[in-house]
Order: sequence, then C-alpha cells, then structure tokens
Amino acid sequence: MLPPTEGRCLLKRISDLSRQLTSLESKTYAVLDMNVSSNLLLFCRPVGYIRTAYATKNGTPRQGVVCPQVRAELRISRDIFSNPSHSLQGLKEFRYVWLIFWFHLNQVSSAKAKIRPPRMGGRSTGVFSTRSPHRPNPVGLTLAYLEEVSGDTLTLTGVDLVDGTPVLDVKPFIESYDSPSDLLHHPISYDTWVTRAEQSKQLNNVVLTAEARESLNSFHKRCSQEMCPRCLRFSDEDTLLPAIEELLKSDLRSVYRKSKCSDRIHFLTLDNVKLSVWYDSKGCAHVLQIDCFRDDVIERSKIVVKYM
Amino acid sequence: MLPPTEGRCLLKRISDLSRQLTSLESKTYAVLDMNVSSNLLLFCRPVGYIRTAYATKNGTPRQGVVCPQVRAELRISRDIFSNPSHSLQGLKEFRYVWLIFWFHLNQVSSAKAKIRPPRMGGRSTGVFSTRSPHRPNPVGLTLAYLEEVSGDTLTLTGVDLVDGTPVLDVKPFIESYDSPSDLLHHPISYDTWVTRAEQSKQLNNVVLTAEARESLNSFHKRCSQEMCPRCLRFSDEDTLLPAIEELLKSDLRSVYRKSKCSDRIHFLTLDNVKLSVWYDSKGCAHVLQIDCFRDDVIERSKIVVKYM
Repeated sequence: MLPPTEGRCLLKRISDLSRQLTSLESKTYAVLDMNVSSNLLLFCRPVGYIRTAYATKNGTPRQGVVCPQVRAELRISRDIFSNPSHSLQGLKEFRYVWLIFWFHLNQVSSAKAKIRPPRMGGRSTGVFSTRSPHRPNPVGLTLAYLEEVSGDTLTLTGVDLVDGTPVLDVKPFIESYDSPSDLLHHPISYDTWVTRAEQSKQLNNVVLTAEARESLNSFHKRCSQEMCPRCLRFSDEDTLLPAIEELLKSDLRSVYRKSKCSDRIHFLTLDNVKLSVWYDSKGCAHVLQIDCFRDDVIERSKIVVKYM
Repeated sequence: MLPPTEGRCLLKRISDLSRQLTSLESKTYAVLDMNVSSNLLLFCRPVGYIRTAYATKNGTPRQGVVCPQVRAELRISRDIFSNPSHSLQGLKEFRYVWLIFWFHLNQVSSAKAKIRPPRMGGRSTGVFSTRSPHRPNPVGLTLAYLEEVSGDTLTLTGVDLVDGTPVLDVKPFIESYDSPSDLLHHPISYDTWVTRAEQSKQLNNVVLTAEARESLNSFHKRCSQEMCPRCLRFSDEDTLLPAIEELLKSDLRSVYRKSKCSDRIHFLTLDNVKLSVWYDSKGCAHVLQIDCFRDDVIERSKIVVKYM
C-alpha cells in the first residue's frame, strides 16, 4: 500500500487521464477489425460498494449459498444517479437479484488460461469452466436474496462478497430468462466436478472452546447509540453463532492450506470478530478464540482498492 | 460514423492514453473513500466477439429463450490468451453458460434512473428492476445452451445478442449457485410485471406471402466453397423458416411501434436475409418479402463499435 499522499497524486493522474479518455469517447466512433480486438477498452464505474460481514478474502465464502443468513447492504451511489432511490423502484416485486461485481482484491493482474480451483483437489482446468476470481476480466456474478429495498439501499442475504466490493450492476432474477429448465424444456441432471465436489463434501463439526464461548457471551450487543462503530451486522451472540457455524461448516481452506498447513491456526474475520480456528484431521473446526475488534481498529469508511 | 482515417487516429490516441493508464494501474494502489466512489474507473477487454444471426438491434430478441434454435459462435481471442483453447478446457462438462457482455450499440451514454420497458406498456420503473440495456454500466447477462466446444470456439444456442457483441466473460451455469430454489429451499411462485407480461402475451401467427415463400426456396444453400460470404448461419430454407417463425412469434416491436406505426412495414435482419413484415391488428405477422443479401453487402469482418 502506498502512503496516502502518493496514493492521492496517482489517483489524480488516473482521474485526469480518464477525463481525457471520456471526452474522446463521447464524440468518437472507431472502426474496429474484429480480428484485432485488443484495442477495445471498456470502462465501468461502481454503482455502489457492498457492505458485508466479510472483512478479508480469507474467510469469505465461495458462493452466497454457503451462508444464507448473513446480511449485506448495497447503497446505490449518488455519483451514478441524482436520485438513486428512483433506480430501485419496482425491484421489491422480485425475490432474488443478480449482482455483477468486480473482484477488486485480486493480486495477479494477468489471468491464466488454466487454473486450479480449490475443490478440484489440485487438478487444473480452463478458467472459463470455473467461477474463479482470476479471469481475464475480474467480473463476478452472484445470486442474492432480496430482503428489503428502502430508499437507495438494498438489504440482501446469501452474499459471498468481501466488504467493500465494487458492484457494477443489479438485475432482477427472472425465472424464464435465468432458469435453464425453462430454456429448453428438459430437466437438468448432469454431472460435473462441482456437483461431485459438493456430494463428497463432508460437513465439518464446529466446536467452541470455553474461552471462545465466554468471548461470545461478552460480545457487544447492538446498542441504541447511533453510528456506534461496534454495532455492525450482528446484533447479539444469537445471530453471530449460527453465522460462525455456517461459515466454518463450509470448509474455506485452499488445497495448499489443507494439505500443507494442518498444524497451523486459521484466522478468519467475520464482521466485527476475529476467529482463531484449528481444523483437526477429521475435519472438525475448533474455535479456539473469538476476538471482538476494538473501536479504534474499525475504520470502516476507508478501504484499500487495487486497480486491476 | 467517422471516416476510417479519422477513426484510426482517434483509436490511436485512445490506445496511447490507455497504455499510460495501464502502466499506472500495474504499480499503484489508491486509497479510496467509499463515500466518493466516482473516481474508480474499471477497465474491461472483450474476451471475444460473438457471431450471431442478428445483424441489427431491431430484430434481435430480448432474451435468448425467444429463439432457442438460432446458433451463435464465440471464439476466444488470441489477445487474451496465447492458447485460447486452454481456457475452455473442461467447459464441455456443463450444459449451460452465462455470457456477460457489453451492450455496444447503446446510443445514449448517460443512463437514466427510471426507464420504460417495452412490455410494461409505457409505464416507467427503476432501471435496476429491469434487464434493459440502458443502465449505468451497459453490461448484459444471458444464459445460453452450450452446443459444442471445439478448440478456441464455443457453439451456442438461445443467444439474444447482436452480431459482433463484445463478450466480457463466460461462466458455467452451476445449479447450486444459480438456482434460487436451491438457495433458500423454497419454490418460487411470485408475480411480477415480467410474468404478467409473459402470460398475457399472445402468440402471433406467421404467414408468408407467395413471393416470400418463393425467395425462401431460392435461398442460398450452404455450399462446399470455403469462406463463401453467403454461407452464414443457416444452411438451407428448412433451418431458416423455423428461425423466422420463432423470431416473429415473439413480438419484438416497441410500445411506440405497436401503437403509432400500425400502418408501417417492419424491416428485420436475420443473418443473411432481410425480412419485410407487417403486423395486422390481430397480431398476425405477414412476411411480405424476404431479400437475401448480395455478396458485396456482406462485410462481416468489420463492425462499427461506439465507445461507451
């Protein structure tokens, strides 16, 4: 991470350049040869940044289905529409939405044609036959349950995004467009590495040590104070505990971590708590410690974004 | 459209600027305030350009489901991967794929918060509660049936994209991620303007005049000549006729066209034929004329792309 002043300078240069580009774009058409496609650069802007309970990549579930109870919020930016709430009008009619988002925490800027998905046990496959974040355009797709629309803000559950992920688009789930059994009128019953991995997946047991359980009991309960930095997603231990269990039952460790780090503790962050977890050889997750963040650690209004 | 020389100059300027941006991106992190999101510009490059039977926006179905028989081809670009075929390895295991694409023919560069979808009969709704192309980031999502993977090329059916549309990503359809009835274990039975519009939709009759039928009989049959410019998607009249019927049965006219232009002929382009169609007051589509394109009109290797 660069120091803030240097970061700001670079940001300004990028912003100047992109202004120049925008002025060109608005008045130009370009004749493109379809066989020489590399020149076409397309620009997106986030319509908002999602707030979720997952502070880091490590500990964020691979798909929203893993933790259906964990809530998230997306506020449509005022930089996109002067009346953001107008853009959400009518969305309540739908129960599910697609989020198209940007994998902003990808470390590697150049994508590889073949990758090794964690659940394929180390074997490699083509990047387009996976949902890996490491793709030519780091664009993700996830289906979320729409709990509520209030003004300019959507409340969602079943979201698999790291806190602060830039969202490019929200689209309603429409069964007749998005459900393949409707598309060609035959049921799907096919066998892929994904379904095989899901079937063979063992549910892990989750056990809390006495110390962890004690921390949980002293967890900060949602107070009436407005803008309290410790009042984040979970209001009390009764909502936090099921979320911890959901998260740990789905084994989020990479192949490398599973095979080479069986003696190491895994640290996961879930909203305002940090979990220290050890997976034993039978796949049981032992929650050794639960640390609640101190007020001064929570600087939620700033995030670090790497330009892709 | 600008003359080619001017187009090329502008393309070079854009390319120079974007190179400068890329060099900045690769080495910089920027500290962003989440409340000031407008500065974040994200860049995408097409992974390929889809070839479909739909030459113009007018006449392209609104969703792939409308014309499940019409084939399309997507070739992964060599500018993205030196071995594009590697990126498709394993994809054959899946029957359906998501295409994330760019609505490159959008005329209006600034999106509105509320729009009037054709099937809502003129009423307006929030852009995020529709699948309209006119959105803050002109990114589209469509589910297509995967017919075949051969080397660097996917053959698809049920695609609703204009020929030459830049594709940003291909992802496998994975039932447990993408099917909401699995997500929260309850069946969906909800009522939206989309389902209401679909239920109330009358299937149009399609009638061909004697002249149109004659043109169809003299339609260019797929020949053995390699690179024949008239050998496009449809090999003969037996594959073309069902596609014409599918397309016209789904009424693609806008609200304006339906209400104000009942006395006007609609011209649609489907692959290498041009259709002249009149919808009578009962919704029956009369195909008055079918013109097969002459060789010199088909310049399929060049397309005009407007920068968004």
